[in-house]
Amino acid sequence: MPDTARAARPGALHPDRALPADPVTRPVARRILEATRDLPIVSMHGHVDAGVLARDEPFGDPASLLVVPDHYLVRMLVSQGVPHEALGLARRDGGPVEQDPRAIWRTFAAHWHLFRGTPTRFWLDHVLVEVLGVTQRLSAETADAAYDTIAARLVEPGFRPLSLLDRFGIEVLATTDPATADLADHAALADRGWGERVVPTFRPDAVLHVDRPGWAADVARLGELAGVDIGSYQGFVRALELRRQAFVAAGARATDHGHVRADTTPMTLHEASAVFDAALRGDVDAAAARAFSAHMLFEMARMSTQDGLVMQLHPGALRDHDPGIAARYGHDVGYDVPVVTEYVHALRPLLTAFGHHPGMRLVLFTLDEDTFTRELAPLAGVYPAVRLGAPWWFLDTPDGMRRFREAVTDTAGFANTTGFVDDTRAFLSIPARHDLARRVDAGFLARLVVEHRLDLDEALETAVDLAYRIPRDAYARRAEVLP
Amino acid sequence: MPDTARAARPGALHPDRALPADPVTRPVARRILEATRDLPIVSMHGHVDAGVLARDEPFGDPASLLVVPDHYLVRMLVSQGVPHEALGLARRDGGPVEQDPRAIWRTFAAHWHLFRGTPTRFWLDHVLVEVLGVTQRLSAETADAAYDTIAARLVEPGFRPLSLLDRFGIEVLATTDPATADLADHAALADRGWGERVVPTFRPDAVLHVDRPGWAADVARLGELAGVDIGSYQGFVRALELRRQAFVAAGARATDHGHVRADTTPMTLHEASAVFDAALRGDVDAAAARAFSAHMLFEMARMSTQDGLVMQLHPGALRDHDPGIAARYGHDVGYDVPVVTEYVHALRPLLTAFGHHPGMRLVLFTLDEDTFTRELAPLAGVYPAVRLGAPWWFLDTPDGMRRFREAVTDTAGFANTTGFVDDTRAFLSIPARHDLARRVDAGFLARLVVEHRLDLDEALETAVDLAYRIPRDAYARRAEVLP
Amino acid sequence: MPDTARAARPGALHPDRALPADPVTRPVARRILEATRDLPIVSMHGHVDAGVLARDEPFGDPASLLVVPDHYLVRMLVSQGVPHEALGLARRDGGPVEQDPRAIWRTFAAHWHLFRGTPTRFWLDHVLVEVLGVTQRLSAETADAAYDTIAARLVEPGFRPLSLLDRFGIEVLATTDPATADLADHAALADRGWGERVVPTFRPDAVLHVDRPGWAADVARLGELAGVDIGSYQGFVRALELRRQAFVAAGARATDHGHVRADTTPMTLHEASAVFDAALRGDVDAAAARAFSAHMLFEMARMSTQDGLVMQLHPGALRDHDPGIAARYGHDVGYDVPVVTEYVHALRPLLTAFGHHPGMRLVLFTLDEDTFTRELAPLAGVYPAVRLGAPWWFLDTPDGMRRFREAVTDTAGFANTTGFVDDTRAFLSIPARHDLARRVDAGFLARLVVEHRLDLDEALETAVDLAYRIPRDAYARRAEVLP
Repeated sequence: MPDTARAARPGALHPDRALPADPVTRPVARRILEATRDLPIVSMHGHVDAGVLARDEPFGDPASLLVVPDHYLVRMLVSQGVPHEALGLARRDGGPVEQDPRAIWRTFAAHWHLFRGTPTRFWLDHVLVEVLGVTQRLSAETADAAYDTIAARLVEPGFRPLSLLDRFGIEVLATTDPATADLADHAALADRGWGERVVPTFRPDAVLHVDRPGWAADVARLGELAGVDIGSYQGFVRALELRRQAFVAAGARATDHGHVRADTTPMTLHEASAVFDAALRGDVDAAAARAFSAHMLFEMARMSTQDGLVMQLHPGALRDHDPGIAARYGHDVGYDVPVVTEYVHALRPLLTAFGHHPGMRLVLFTLDEDTFTRELAPLAGVYPAVRLGAPWWFLDTPDGMRRFREAVTDTAGFANTTGFVDDTRAFLSIPARHDLARRVDAGFLARLVVEHRLDLDEALETAVDLAYRIPRDAYARRAEVLP
Repeated sequence: MPDTARAARPGALHPDRALPADPVTRPVARRILEATRDLPIVSMHGHVDAGVLARDEPFGDPASLLVVPDHYLVRMLVSQGVPHEALGLARRDGGPVEQDPRAIWRTFAAHWHLFRGTPTRFWLDHVLVEVLGVTQRLSAETADAAYDTIAARLVEPGFRPLSLLDRFGIEVLATTDPATADLADHAALADRGWGERVVPTFRPDAVLHVDRPGWAADVARLGELAGVDIGSYQGFVRALELRRQAFVAAGARATDHGHVRADTTPMTLHEASAVFDAALRGDVDAAAARAFSAHMLFEMARMSTQDGLVMQLHPGALRDHDPGIAARYGHDVGYDVPVVTEYVHALRPLLTAFGHHPGMRLVLFTLDEDTFTRELAPLAGVYPAVRLGAPWWFLDTPDGMRRFREAVTDTAGFANTTGFVDDTRAFLSIPARHDLARRVDAGFLARLVVEHRLDLDEALETAVDLAYRIPRDAYARRAEVLP
Repeated sequence: MPDTARAARPGALHPDRALPADPVTRPVARRILEATRDLPIVSMHGHVDAGVLARDEPFGDPASLLVVPDHYLVRMLVSQGVPHEALGLARRDGGPVEQDPRAIWRTFAAHWHLFRGTPTRFWLDHVLVEVLGVTQRLSAETADAAYDTIAARLVEPGFRPLSLLDRFGIEVLATTDPATADLADHAALADRGWGERVVPTFRPDAVLHVDRPGWAADVARLGELAGVDIGSYQGFVRALELRRQAFVAAGARATDHGHVRADTTPMTLHEASAVFDAALRGDVDAAAARAFSAHMLFEMARMSTQDGLVMQLHPGALRDHDPGIAARYGHDVGYDVPVVTEYVHALRPLLTAFGHHPGMRLVLFTLDEDTFTRELAPLAGVYPAVRLGAPWWFLDTPDGMRRFREAVTDTAGFANTTGFVDDTRAFLSIPARHDLARRVDAGFLARLVVEHRLDLDEALETAVDLAYRIPRDAYARRAEVLP
């Protein structure tokens, strides 16, 4: 047995990482992976801030770049007793939190062992070694040296955000933007010739959930931007249509929708108007708000058949499981937890209406892998409008992505999936995430080859499809691909 | 690495296909598979039309044999934008559809790549190479040559249906027949000496779902065939009992039941009569119809304890997800989608009443693999009446069958499963399906052997059990196996 | 291929059993396993009767030791038609059952093939070969010889229960004891110096489910033992607090809770008092009883924050699926069946209140593996109070434990699990169960190493963590680990 112990760690990523172990499958996987190595990255769903790219300023310190904003990291450290304050998470009450980035980094590094076996570890190893040149394993002892290495790297000119887009080989990057975004950052990027490579995504959640605190203000802002009186439901719908057109003009290819349920049951105009009017009066209950948001998903689909924006649906996350944490530290700090998600009945209204419409494309994501074989693959395997998004969030892992392929390929094949989307706000980890996805797909395809379920030439072609052609085509605005 | 690229494709199926890749397990799997190679096929649950066998006429053209009626194929092509009309699916409104079988075949062949990684591809490879002698991979270029090869083969005398029964080594084939079947085809087959090899299965769904369009006519027909006045619930029950007896006389060994839910809650005689009477008046709501169908499952179990017919339950498919498609092209064209299925509470009435009855055998199927370890294996692992049917429909795949064994064997062992049932209406694919199942079971057993969890002699015996002895015995009518 | 057929069976367990087959991974797994071989057993959740240890008398005959009380064995034999009576299960009506242990043993041995591929087979092979010296495979032919070998072994002085604690290398063993236990056996053990090694666990289920037959008597007994008037809800709560203190004094480290649902919704004092009073009057309905038991889980958590007892929750088992069987043979004879279990909403009240409390530790178990990635790992991966218990009952198997690690490690890592708990009442199988768990973990860690997702030194350290350090620390009473 080769000794791969600590002393032998070469400070470089192993070329066979995340490929299947058995000696028959691995060389086939390696060959398939090779076919995708030089392909550009198509990153059609992510959460990188467009402003970061538009300003193109150097990143901050190692902690505020890599630790504080990464909810994967924060939640693991918190789960083992590290206080949020020690990680520098700002408190809403202004209470004291750790301000020294080096101290935050040391806390993180001292708990590196917690990430053993996790995708966070896999991604960070890639970021540290390949992107930042840190070759020692993180620990309390190596924390300072790693910090210094990273800090020095971050001020190099080649580490500005737009330079990294080139270095990472990112052909196109989609950001996620609220319906009330003024798109100024995208305009600035377009002015400088980056308009084709950095595109916005229309995310109207904030204005579709009418019982959200701040909803009325967001809707007012929506009306302003659209130049429409949103005093009525019809005005609201019109404003949404106009904002979608503005996003299309700014290069958007898709919309994105985060709802707890996938329900798409439409209301009558009368019903929808009544809820909208009640919401404007601040007099709407949770059930009506839920029904309205389901109705608006149906409306978003209807609009997609007109403007060709690809519709992405991300249901099934219960946000802020502990409301006290949200009150103290805000949202997106690791307390969102998946719940059972139903698609078959929920999507029936939308799919019956638009499932065969040539202008419709619906990309479905899930946090509930129980639905892979039971619901999602059967739906994607028959409705022309449906594609399956990549395994998402808690499922975006070596084993999660493998299970996804093993589960959905039988019924949906490869062509009814979208290929990989990285869904990350951690800019430096984009290459790591695409690299891992390509490795997992190479391993899956290799198994099909060595089990004589697929010929090698087909596997090689499919690997390129999954890494490049399919995501590029899946997110082509429908108006572009149809006459 | 051996080059298994396209040019090297030998036009023959690889002997190790679908066996585990690792070099330690594969030779053990090969040896276990060898033990089942010459066993006859016991096909106790399928959808081959008895009339096809009774008439024993040549099959039609390649498209109408292999493409048009296969909902697996149709749904995949439709999912990627091929119109139903291009595949020759008849429209209920008589609208124009492609009539030329060669054109339909070309459309199918040009989309062959969509089936990469799917079981459809695996089955069709077997049918094309082993049964039909097509040795080139399908594509737009090879479509015509393949068509001609198949068309020529189909008119050979050895390709009549009954000849194929022999060629395929099918010891017994069960068809699926409505409660209102006159069983004339089976009588004709029996007259010609095939009565032991082709047996009917009693499927009363059409008369148990009282809110079905056409229910009243079917019930009237049921009464006629049984010679019973079905003006009352008691007459209806009596007619069902008599029809079951007619099926038993025709060689039937089992009943089959497709319900959305597995609910088996019985009604009182008074309640059941009230629903039945209302249904005759055409005045029954969905809830009452649902309750009645649950009650009738309980009744079917009661009858099984008297006539010994094995009871098969296939819950969990929502039929015709898009009603517009059903209205245009009819049922069974690929729009049935699985839903969450609950067994533990649903079957409690039936199992409490009959779960230990020596005349009862209940074979459970599922489209919801979440129930494998949580519900199905625990139930089958204690109730003497229960057996687990093979992975079904969307789960009848290399990985699906592997997951089934990995999930249920721990708690249910092998003896509480039924062995493989092919559940197919694609006659030519019956050997392919049994072949695949034997390969997956050989792979699973080989893993147990190389992990020293089972001795090889036990694995060899178990392989034969699963391929032959268990399905034969599982579907023996209980009156035959009990004193 | 090596012939591992029956004749070659060496009468010894294979050193590589349950390790991954592929020739690259196995040697790494073997080395990792080696690191845990000599570690003591920490058995923090089991069902060995404290009286057996306190009395320290020889075990009975082979059948009453190994067959009759083992519901895994009984349920499998029953599922294939063996009557309960033939297995010697006492009937509540006093009806005749097999009394001859040798006859019971013969029936069991003749059905040995039913356990192929099951964990029962794996455990029993270990017990028979390693503990009892039976080297021939069980069968009708070998039944008597095996019986004689075992019977002779059981009367050896070294086979007294306390001797086996030493022989098995059990550092600490937790029993499970009702809230109404007088703890006399533990006191006797403590008097003889075993107080640190055999500790009780507080299990109050019987007094928390107010609609249970016998509830009032149990509550009365609780009051007596606590010396508290339990005529009021406040008295009831006080009695529970005092009993927990008595358990703490006797060395208890944890509580244990078996509920059908994981619901932890608290009631107001007024509501709780009303249900309690109604229950004392014998006038409580199922819904109120359910709500009260949820409330009491919340209360148990509150008490844990005060006395530091680790709280274990085992939801999701529907007891006595066939009530007729329970009426005839009693509980725990194999008819408990898992049901869908929901954690995210159910635990929200408890976790919002105590999820970050330094005195709180909640160990979650499940019979519903669908919740691994969707609910349990995300909750354990953020709340400091939560740890994931080992795969339980129907999931405590080679493949079940592998799936657990593959599913939860991504999000919860290793440190948020508890390591293995054996949960067994089969005393002789404790080493077998820990051995199997260590093998599965070694295999999982080896795969991470050979896929270059973890370095070998980290895997070696993690293996020791999982086998020893983590279970020891996870069940440390919180008052001991906190200032």
